[in-house]
Amino acid sequence: MFPPAMAGYDRAITIFSPEGKIYQVEYAGEAVKRGWPTVGVKCRSGVALAAEKRKISALFDSSSLEKIYIIDDHVAASPSGLLADARILIDYARDIALSHRFLYDEPIDVEFLTKAVCNLKQQYTQFGGARPFGVALLIAGIDRHGARLYQTDPSGVYIGYFATAIGAESGTITEFLEKNYKFDIDMGECVELAVKALASAVEVTDSSSVEVAYATLEEKKIKKMSADEVSALLAKLGLLKKS
Amino acid sequence: MFPPAMAGYDRAITIFSPEGKIYQVEYAGEAVKRGWPTVGVKCRSGVALAAEKRKISALFDSSSLEKIYIIDDHVAASPSGLLADARILIDYARDIALSHRFLYDEPIDVEFLTKAVCNLKQQYTQFGGARPFGVALLIAGIDRHGARLYQTDPSGVYIGYFATAIGAESGTITEFLEKNYKFDIDMGECVELAVKALASAVEVTDSSSVEVAYATLEEKKIKKMSADEVSALLAKLGLLKKS
Amino acid sequence: MFPPAMAGYDRAITIFSPEGKIYQVEYAGEAVKRGWPTVGVKCRSGVALAAEKRKISALFDSSSLEKIYIIDDHVAASPSGLLADARILIDYARDIALSHRFLYDEPIDVEFLTKAVCNLKQQYTQFGGARPFGVALLIAGIDRHGARLYQTDPSGVYIGYFATAIGAESGTITEFLEKNYKFDIDMGECVELAVKALASAVEVTDSSSVEVAYATLEEKKIKKMSADEVSALLAKLGLLKKS
Amino acid sequence: MFPPAMAGYDRAITIFSPEGKIYQVEYAGEAVKRGWPTVGVKCRSGVALAAEKRKISALFDSSSLEKIYIIDDHVAASPSGLLADARILIDYARDIALSHRFLYDEPIDVEFLTKAVCNLKQQYTQFGGARPFGVALLIAGIDRHGARLYQTDPSGVYIGYFATAIGAESGTITEFLEKNYKFDIDMGECVELAVKALASAVEVTDSSSVEVAYATLEEKKIKKMSADEVSALLAKLGLLKKS
Amino acid sequence: MFPPAMAGYDRAITIFSPEGKIYQVEYAGEAVKRGWPTVGVKCRSGVALAAEKRKISALFDSSSLEKIYIIDDHVAASPSGLLADARILIDYARDIALSHRFLYDEPIDVEFLTKAVCNLKQQYTQFGGARPFGVALLIAGIDRHGARLYQTDPSGVYIGYFATAIGAESGTITEFLEKNYKFDIDMGECVELAVKALASAVEVTDSSSVEVAYATLEEKKIKKMSADEVSALLAKLGLLKKS
Amino acid sequence: MFPPAMAGYDRAITIFSPEGKIYQVEYAGEAVKRGWPTVGVKCRSGVALAAEKRKISALFDSSSLEKIYIIDDHVAASPSGLLADARILIDYARDIALSHRFLYDEPIDVEFLTKAVCNLKQQYTQFGGARPFGVALLIAGIDRHGARLYQTDPSGVYIGYFATAIGAESGTITEFLEKNYKFDIDMGECVELAVKALASAVEVTDSSSVEVAYATLEEKKIKKMSADEVSALLAKLGLLKKS
Amino acid sequence: MFPPAMAGYDRAITIFSPEGKIYQVEYAGEAVKRGWPTVGVKCRSGVALAAEKRKISALFDSSSLEKIYIIDDHVAASPSGLLADARILIDYARDIALSHRFLYDEPIDVEFLTKAVCNLKQQYTQFGGARPFGVALLIAGIDRHGARLYQTDPSGVYIGYFATAIGAESGTITEFLEKNYKFDIDMGECVELAVKALASAVEVTDSSSVEVAYATLEEKKIKKMSADEVSALLAKLGLLKKS
Repeated sequence: MFPPAMAGYDRAITIFSPEGKIYQVEYAGEAVKRGWPTVGVKCRSGVALAAEKRKISALFDSSSLEKIYIIDDHVAASPSGLLADARILIDYARDIALSHRFLYDEPIDVEFLTKAVCNLKQQYTQFGGARPFGVALLIAGIDRHGARLYQTDPSGVYIGYFATAIGAESGTITEFLEKNYKFDIDMGECVELAVKALASAVEVTDSSSVEVAYATLEEKKIKKMSADEVSALLAKLGLLKKS
Repeated sequence: MFPPAMAGYDRAITIFSPEGKIYQVEYAGEAVKRGWPTVGVKCRSGVALAAEKRKISALFDSSSLEKIYIIDDHVAASPSGLLADARILIDYARDIALSHRFLYDEPIDVEFLTKAVCNLKQQYTQFGGARPFGVALLIAGIDRHGARLYQTDPSGVYIGYFATAIGAESGTITEFLEKNYKFDIDMGECVELAVKALASAVEVTDSSSVEVAYATLEEKKIKKMSADEVSALLAKLGLLKKS
Repeated sequence: MFPPAMAGYDRAITIFSPEGKIYQVEYAGEAVKRGWPTVGVKCRSGVALAAEKRKISALFDSSSLEKIYIIDDHVAASPSGLLADARILIDYARDIALSHRFLYDEPIDVEFLTKAVCNLKQQYTQFGGARPFGVALLIAGIDRHGARLYQTDPSGVYIGYFATAIGAESGTITEFLEKNYKFDIDMGECVELAVKALASAVEVTDSSSVEVAYATLEEKKIKKMSADEVSALLAKLGLLKKS
Repeated sequence: MFPPAMAGYDRAITIFSPEGKIYQVEYAGEAVKRGWPTVGVKCRSGVALAAEKRKISALFDSSSLEKIYIIDDHVAASPSGLLADARILIDYARDIALSHRFLYDEPIDVEFLTKAVCNLKQQYTQFGGARPFGVALLIAGIDRHGARLYQTDPSGVYIGYFATAIGAESGTITEFLEKNYKFDIDMGECVELAVKALASAVEVTDSSSVEVAYATLEEKKIKKMSADEVSALLAKLGLLKKS
Repeated sequence: MFPPAMAGYDRAITIFSPEGKIYQVEYAGEAVKRGWPTVGVKCRSGVALAAEKRKISALFDSSSLEKIYIIDDHVAASPSGLLADARILIDYARDIALSHRFLYDEPIDVEFLTKAVCNLKQQYTQFGGARPFGVALLIAGIDRHGARLYQTDPSGVYIGYFATAIGAESGTITEFLEKNYKFDIDMGECVELAVKALASAVEVTDSSSVEVAYATLEEKKIKKMSADEVSALLAKLGLLKKS
Repeated sequence: MFPPAMAGYDRAITIFSPEGKIYQVEYAGEAVKRGWPTVGVKCRSGVALAAEKRKISALFDSSSLEKIYIIDDHVAASPSGLLADARILIDYARDIALSHRFLYDEPIDVEFLTKAVCNLKQQYTQFGGARPFGVALLIAGIDRHGARLYQTDPSGVYIGYFATAIGAESGTITEFLEKNYKFDIDMGECVELAVKALASAVEVTDSSSVEVAYATLEEKKIKKMSADEVSALLAKLGLLKKS
Repeated sequence: MFPPAMAGYDRAITIFSPEGKIYQVEYAGEAVKRGWPTVGVKCRSGVALAAEKRKISALFDSSSLEKIYIIDDHVAASPSGLLADARILIDYARDIALSHRFLYDEPIDVEFLTKAVCNLKQQYTQFGGARPFGVALLIAGIDRHGARLYQTDPSGVYIGYFATAIGAESGTITEFLEKNYKFDIDMGECVELAVKALASAVEVTDSSSVEVAYATLEEKKIKKMSADEVSALLAKLGLLKKS
């Protein structure tokens, strides 16, 4: 519970508290922490993403809900937090990437794309009349600098990682990654590490509960694994539950 | 009852609470929960909607009030919540669908339409100066991907379901659906399931208290059942009350 | 009296309370409930309106105040609530109806007109910076679909009725209508029913205390009864007080 | 004194209280009740206005302050309430009347003019960012419909009267009018009635403490009485105080 | 001290209190009452202004500060209240007067000018987002109607006087004027009366503590007295303190 | 400490308190009182400014910080209060002076320039959405009227002085000036008086702790003294501390 | 903890407290104090910057995060505080510098650039609707005036220093600089002093935990040291930790 004297700082939009914090941004971070987790891993050969999809109900059509979005041929994003907010940012990122191809006839750099998305996020933390975006994104891809993996947060900050996780249980997943991460692995091991990290914290038991995508340095293309490929992978990892 | 210290978060428009929730969106959800229920069911052969219409008063002209709206030839929507808000979204959806036909000379994809409606909803959750839409919609239709059934909520999130319900008693109806749902049924069984699910929670006793619509994969056209067809169906299901 | 914790929800414009209600809309409804009542009755032969006019003061010029407004040849509206707000909506309705005639060279459908007025009302419930309209309208007319009678409320909802009442004592009047309503009556009986319903709850004793209008399916024209016609009708119904 | 829980409703601009009232409009009405009174009387032969002018101080130049304003040849207005607000409405009315002559080459109908002024007033009761006009107006004139006398209030409502009063002591003056009013009098008697009604409640003792204007059906012109004419009238009525 | 329940009405800009008052305007009036006083006197021969200038400090350059501003050849204004606000109104008045000469090639009527300034003031009392002007003005001049003297206040009201005072001690000064005022005096006596009235309430002991201006009906030009002329006048009146 | 009932007046921007004060302007004045002091002195031969520069830290580059700004050849300004606000006003003043030269091919009058700056300041005290400027300026120069010295404050008021001081300890400095001021001194004595007045209240011990500027009537040019000149002056006055 | 009566001043955006402070600016300063520290040192030969980079997590890709940004060939900036805010200011500075080269075909003066950035910052402290930038910047470079080192803060103030630090532990670092600073050192010593100052307060143990940049008067180009150069330097200073 908050003491009475503090009650004001977190209500007014985009103002500082006496400690120099912007509570609305921190609370937006809480929305992220309640989101389904997503994991990203970068390695010698490329980069992989694995994202949980929870079974909202028995009759939920899991194929209707994406947790990993292709932004452009060479870059994908996976959100945690408010899904409606995520959709707005994903559309924005796709516009930015498409414009870049149109103007310069080349794929956009992953960091340049990430920065554009985060500049939009920052605006929503500084001006009144709107709330911050309640969503974090992992943005992963291959560009002329190699494999790239960025984590963005509601404040508009983005940071590169070798491996990271956002959303619920991201603490547990990150611990798993810190214990098991190696850079010098191939793409298959990289994907497996991402899925195992996710499985260390949440139930990943069939192809409807996880999405997986990856891109290799050679191909420079994001590929989303099919349900069959995911099932095979889960079986290989001993995670697949017989139905 | 809310403790005093919490009172502030739910009053200011579109800001986060310390738990990362947007109370205005959650309260808009309460308006949905007070709405008359509507049910959607997808099956091998198509998709069906059944919506309750309550007898507001003895002299109420039930024919004046629609609960299932044709958006385009191939897609319909049924709302729960504030009916005036629903009307705005229905008109918006019709504009989107019509523009699509005009521009591309083909029916709009059901998900594309749903996303457009939900992006509008999301805007009303992020910017100040307006409240969120207090309405959920079931959007059902047939497009090149087959039968589609989406549930949208006031936050702007949409999710696909095999069968689902919104509005008052949606919990009871959903339980009924989970127990009785099968995908591999024909259109007639699908419509019956929708109506029985609705009748499991609310009074459905004559053709003025329920609207029914369906679309088959072959015809790709939404058809609303006439009062006579509804009466016959209710009689068949043993629901019709002799007047 | 409201408990302290509730005090905030009804003050801020166009936001939801925890129960999903928009208090400003509900309070606007109170302004309607304080308005002079108006009654509408639809029958086999057409539709009738009867509206009370109270004697504000002994020197009040009752001819200066209309309670039933002709919107177009075939449609009229009668408000309860804030009269200055009503005037704005009446003017808006007249513009809509006139534009329709000008553009399509045909009378506007009554429901189409009603929806346009209610969409305007809805806007005032969703956006900040203005209050909802504190007025309900009965809109009655004849169009290609037959006789039409709609009741609109401050939220922007409209619903069709066979017979209904708005304003002060509308509960008592509605009870009277429910007991005495028949669809299969002629225009004269329809007008009499409307006036008797009104007289069941308020003092209707001479031609300056009630306005009456009706439209038959054959003529498709709204006619307002003259003072003499009203006096004759009241005399026939035994309501006329000798002065 | 107001109980604490009520304190909020009357502070926020243009919102409804739980009883469906708009307090800002009601408080603006208090400004009217504190204004110097003005009286209007309509009769068989025309219409008359009489307005009090208080001696603000011994050195006040009463000729500098008008209480009855000529709007156009055939119509005048007399305000009670905030004089600076009145000036804005008077100028607005003059613009409307002048435009009408310019566009249609005929005098504006008195009700049409009154409605235009009241529509402006209504806007200030519905939108935030401004307060209502704190002024009521009597608008009197002769048009093709005969003699007209309207009373407008801060809510934007206008109502026709045979005789009425606004401002301080308007209750006492109205009582006097109700006891003494006759329609079938000539212009001279009409003017006398207006002045006597005013004198029944406030001190009317010389030509600097009252303004009088009238218009006959034959001439259709508003005439303001000169100081000498007013003195003669007061002398005739036994009101003139010897100085 | 104000009781707690009242605290709200005077804080919000431009809204009415339950008694129909606009507190912001009344508080702006307090700023006027704290201003240095200024006196205006009208007589048979013309009009005169006398304004106090206080010695802010020993090293204050009294010649740098005007209390009587020439608006146009034939009209001057003298403020009490917030001097920065006064400057804005003075500039506005000069623009209005200059435009009039430019457009019509004749001096502006003093009342027309006064009304223009007061309409601006009124706007600042009705709309949110700005405070009222905290200044009153005496506006004096000669036009085709003769000598004119208006007092304006922060509400936008203006009233003509034969003699009046604004600012600190205006009560005392007005009492003096009421006892000693005569209309039938010449310009010299008029100026003397203004200065004596001022001296009845504040220290007027040398030419740096008072500004004097006047205009005669013959010349129709505002003249500001020089320091020598003021000293001679003060000497004549026995007010000059030997330094 | 403020009593609770007063707490509201000083928080809302640009509104009057019951005593007719604008607290935001008064609080902006507190920012001025916390600023480093600056002194201005006018004499027979011209005008001088002396401004303190505090040693913020041992490694502070005092040459990077100006306390006296050249606005145009013939006029300078020295602020006390918020330095970032001062910069905005200085730039504004330079634009005004430059435009004047460009348009009229002559140096701007010092009062005209001062008035332009103060009109900008006034705007920030009357409109919501921004705070007043938290800075006072001494503006000194030579124009066709001779030597000019104005003090401006956050309200937008400006007043001419023979000698004055703003900022911290301005009370002490003003006392010194009042005791020691003479008009009939030459430029050297004038500069010395300014520096001695400053030194009477704060530590002025070397050329990095004070800036000095002056303009003579003959040259009509503002000259800032070099560090060597300042050191020589301080040595002459016995203020220079040996390092 | 703040006493209740103070609670209001620090919540409303950009208004003054009774002491003349703008709390939002002061709280933004707290965000700066929580930032990773950065150090700047100016000497006879040029200017150097050293900035800490903390290991956010074991898998953080430190190469993805810059703490020293090249603005133009000859000028760099290093922020402490909110990194997303810093990015906006860095981009703004780059635009300003680029436009200058484009318009004048010469490098921008470092102070001119600093002033432009700080004017932007100032705007965010004076107008409502947005919060101040929560970031301080050290801006260092070489221009025609020689080596330049400015510290900017959230209020929009900038001040030149010979050596300074911002961010966490800046007090400790400044103390170190004050004890050890000499102007008359060469570039190598200057860089070493900056790194040692940083290391006096925070852990600087390998090339991933510090960024270093410098510019000499001869070359007038900012050079960022490579990881190897940094490692060598740390080794030389005995700071490098064996991994």
